Formats: sequence, structure tokens, C-alpha cells
Amino acid sequence: MKMRSLAVAAIALVLSAGAHAQFQKPEDAVKYRQAAFTVMAAHFGRIGAMVQGKAPFDAKVAQENAALVVTLSKLPWAGFTPDTEKVKSRTKPEAWMEMGKVRAGADKMMKAVADLDAAARTGNLDAIKKTFGDAAATCKACHDAYRE
Amino acid sequence: MKMRSLAVAAIALVLSAGAHAQFQKPEDAVKYRQAAFTVMAAHFGRIGAMVQGKAPFDAKVAQENAALVVTLSKLPWAGFTPDTEKVKSRTKPEAWMEMGKVRAGADKMMKAVADLDAAARTGNLDAIKKTFGDAAATCKACHDAYRE
Repeated sequence: MKMRSLAVAAIALVLSAGAHAQFQKPEDAVKYRQAAFTVMAAHFGRIGAMVQGKAPFDAKVAQENAALVVTLSKLPWAGFTPDTEKVKSRTKPEAWMEMGKVRAGADKMMKAVADLDAAARTGNLDAIKKTFGDAAATCKACHDAYRE
Repeated sequence: MKMRSLAVAAIALVLSAGAHAQFQKPEDAVKYRQAAFTVMAAHFGRIGAMVQGKAPFDAKVAQENAALVVTLSKLPWAGFTPDTEKVKSRTKPEAWMEMGKVRAGADKMMKAVADLDAAARTGNLDAIKKTFGDAAATCKACHDAYRE
């Protein structure tokens, strides 16, 4: 157990390296990461509506939202501090046991939304559709494994 | 009442012009705006900790956080859609009756955090302190008037 706590702490340190937020209470860290995911999901969903034909395609709107998603994609990880393991949230216990995989999943997601952003800048809807689908798959992978 | 509803709708349209998020349910809009404020407050607070000497001053960290605050400062307003007036939140009824003043307060806040960002880029702690205080005052003004 001690080794595991050390490993979680070490990985959390890596996760929060370069991160911007610090938290007075573990509950604040959980609230922060959930809020960052909420805002990111809203802007990702705005692109999704265009991809799915539920909203008219507007290249400028796609670009603005993709840029926001990239910015927001970097934020939530700082909220997965070791002291939040015991705070009630939808994060499964498995996440804390497999923090290396969580980190790898986060990296994949950040890379995928950067690709989406690059596609959005071209204004090519087909490229946006492709990279949007790839990015959505990275969200789903972590949610399936680590979110209740 | 009808005139008031029309006025609220018209101003909400202005508030959401250029905004990026759209919402399926009023509750989603409330959750979004609250989340955007939460993330913004965390990053604003990171600068505050340095301003108050609770964290060591790091010009790069100040710059990164100020840039995030500017980006985030533009987001919550899209969540004040007219159909959220009846959703439970800390927004006082006065906000819906004085939406023009809310808008003016939002503009002041966005201007103030842009000034903070400019100061952060200079790396001058005194300038950061001054503009941080001015920005915090714009937060407080609206919270005092329009938040429970």
C-alpha cells in the first residue's frame, strides 16, 4: 500500500507539472477538474453538432471551439491530486491504481484534440469529421475504463 | 412582463453573440456557466496567491494563468440564456431585471482581466498587483449585486 501511495504521488506530480491550478482542499481539486471537463465537453459538443449535421457547418465556429478544446484539454489533470482519491466522484478506484494508463490516455486525448484543431484550421469538414471521431474515441476509452 | 421578457431575450442574444456553446437544456447552460466561472476562479486565484505573498512569485506562472483567465472570462455569459431564469442557481432575480447592467459588468471584468494579462506579460509584480486588485473588484461588484 505504501508503494502504491508513493507511485500515485509521483505520477500526480508528473500530471500536475506545468499545471496552473493549486487547491486548498481536495474537494476544490475535484470541483475544478469536473468543471474543466464540463466546459471542454460543451465546446467539443458544439463541433460534434456540426459533424453530425445537427448544426450548420461554420468553419469559424469550428475553429474557435477547437482552439478552446485544446486549451481546456490541458487543465483537468492537475485536479487528480492524490488527496482526491477519497473524495466522492465518478472516478473509479481503478484510475488510482492505473494512473500511468490514465496519464497515457490523457496524452492521447490532448494529441487527438490538437489534431482536431489542426483540421478545424483547414476548414475542411471531412478532416474535422475524421479527427473529431478520433478525439471522441479517446474520451470514451477513459470514460469506459475509469469513470462510473 | 411581456416587454421584460422581450428585453431579456434581446439582451441574451447580444450576450451570446460570438459565444461558442449551445445548450440542449437550460440546466446545461447553468452548469456550463458555473463551470466556466469555477475554472476561471481557480486560475485567477493562482495569481492572487502570488499577489498576496502566499505563493512565490513566478512571472511565467502568472502569465500562463492570466492568459487562461482572459480566455475563460469570455465564456460564462453564453450560459445566461433567458430560459435559465427559472433554473435554481445563485443568480438573483435582479440579474434578469437588470441584464443591461450585468452585461456592462461583464464587459468591465473582461477589460480588467485583459489589463491583468498585459501586466502579467511585463512580469512586473507591482503592475500585476494593481491590475489584479482592479479585476477582483469587478468580480465583487457583480457578485454583491447579482449573486446570492
